Amino acid sequence: MESFFSFLERRVDDCSSLLCVGLDPHVSQLPKPIPASALDFCLHIVKETAPYAAAFKPNAAFFEFFGPEGWAVLKQVIEAIQEESDKLGSMIPVILDAKRGDIASTAEAYAKSAFEQLGAHAITLNPYLGRDSIEPFIGNAKKGVFLLCKTSNPGAQDLQDLKVTEGSIPLYEHVAKLAQTWNTNKNIGLVVGATQPEALTRVRAAASNLWFLSPGVGAQGGDLAVALAAGLRQDGSGMLINVSRGISGAENPGLAAAELRDQISESKDTILREGR
Amino acid sequence: MESFFSFLERRVDDCSSLLCVGLDPHVSQLPKPIPASALDFCLHIVKETAPYAAAFKPNAAFFEFFGPEGWAVLKQVIEAIQEESDKLGSMIPVILDAKRGDIASTAEAYAKSAFEQLGAHAITLNPYLGRDSIEPFIGNAKKGVFLLCKTSNPGAQDLQDLKVTEGSIPLYEHVAKLAQTWNTNKNIGLVVGATQPEALTRVRAAASNLWFLSPGVGAQGGDLAVALAAGLRQDGSGMLINVSRGISGAENPGLAAAELRDQISESKDTILREGR
Repeated sequence: MESFFSFLERRVDDCSSLLCVGLDPHVSQLPKPIPASALDFCLHIVKETAPYAAAFKPNAAFFEFFGPEGWAVLKQVIEAIQEESDKLGSMIPVILDAKRGDIASTAEAYAKSAFEQLGAHAITLNPYLGRDSIEPFIGNAKKGVFLLCKTSNPGAQDLQDLKVTEGSIPLYEHVAKLAQTWNTNKNIGLVVGATQPEALTRVRAAASNLWFLSPGVGAQGGDLAVALAAGLRQDGSGMLINVSRGISGAENPGLAAAELRDQISESKDTILREGR
Repeated sequence: MESFFSFLERRVDDCSSLLCVGLDPHVSQLPKPIPASALDFCLHIVKETAPYAAAFKPNAAFFEFFGPEGWAVLKQVIEAIQEESDKLGSMIPVILDAKRGDIASTAEAYAKSAFEQLGAHAITLNPYLGRDSIEPFIGNAKKGVFLLCKTSNPGAQDLQDLKVTEGSIPLYEHVAKLAQTWNTNKNIGLVVGATQPEALTRVRAAASNLWFLSPGVGAQGGDLAVALAAGLRQDGSGMLINVSRGISGAENPGLAAAELRDQISESKDTILREGR
């Protein structure tokens, strides 16, 4: 059985890309504030960018916004990604950005919703409720999770930067260490914002092999080359750079995605050649 | 304009109850694993227990589990609570237990989904992403939030119990202090598990006036009298005791809710009379 990160790494190899394409059908970006527009918006991006996408990351909030119909659109978008994958002959992982976090049977229901109902391959989770809130998602090694570690927003400092007395390290670094100990099925990664180079460096030191999902390049001000230098693994991989608005807002999303893929590759090559 | 907690306190007075009735249509409790059964399950509980409910708390996960149709059921359940409220002549608040936590326009989309699309009056939120992740939910004082502080599950210890160097207090207590400073619109409460009497005592000391939402009595092993003694405000209010399975699994949910309401009142009266 192939684990989630083996699956992701195969796709990364197939498309020579560390680009994750965010699917955020925010109502302000749609010609009409209706579910059909959200569907068209996402299908257009998927079709145009699939050859360059190591993964797609639909954000549940923008679908939930439309109620039951939005939820149906989310399922259709995930199905469309599978269809594009079939055409390319290379399966593209879908990371559901849902940031869920709950306990016991509630966590199980969320896991079934994401992995079985919707057919996502991975999900983002909030670690605040601890290990038992993660377990229902990681039992099946084929499915992956990315735990929020250090997020890209200003409020990240309110809790995540607090120093904990155990080890005198920031809370986010403690989360990275916990993630390593919980990672017995090799299907846990971390969300570390591309706006946070110091955190990327610290978390990479604490978790040398874990995959990072890093949003924040572009609209949020993260510098691509700086983020990659801080967060890439020794092997020049292990980091998905997520871009949403920088692609969906471009006149030609396919071209924007191709250029981003190439920029990531060039930065990576420079880092591997010249050091960080 | 009436704030969320004024609204809740009016309802608490109207029904002389601090009982929050959880609506968790877990598939194992339904005669058939279909959305229509989830709807019937919830409507039956709502109808039977409304006279004794200070609030209803549907958990989003169990509806999400059923996909788009589940989402439609959730909306119908919230509408049914409004209809029962009208019959009683006393509006019953709906707290959407969604434990969301995201940033910027994503948080705004979740807030619109909960408050406008679904018509909930309050929502549970995860504080890990900090203040800017909470702001889109608290701008309107009529709507309330309950921030996860100390949850009722074993994994609560993994992060929430960590001591932070600032003040040398547990992280959950720091969250309670932050919640107080963020509470300029008087619409923030805290989730503190009824299984955690020490945490209830500490958080009550740190946040003397905030409302608590306390799950964990019954199936999870929390002792009602102990939890109330630790968590009630000086005025004998300020704490919603959530019960889900203890009501939905009872042969007569209305009777179970009435008994729970009375048990809470008796414990409260004893505490006010004899001290803690």
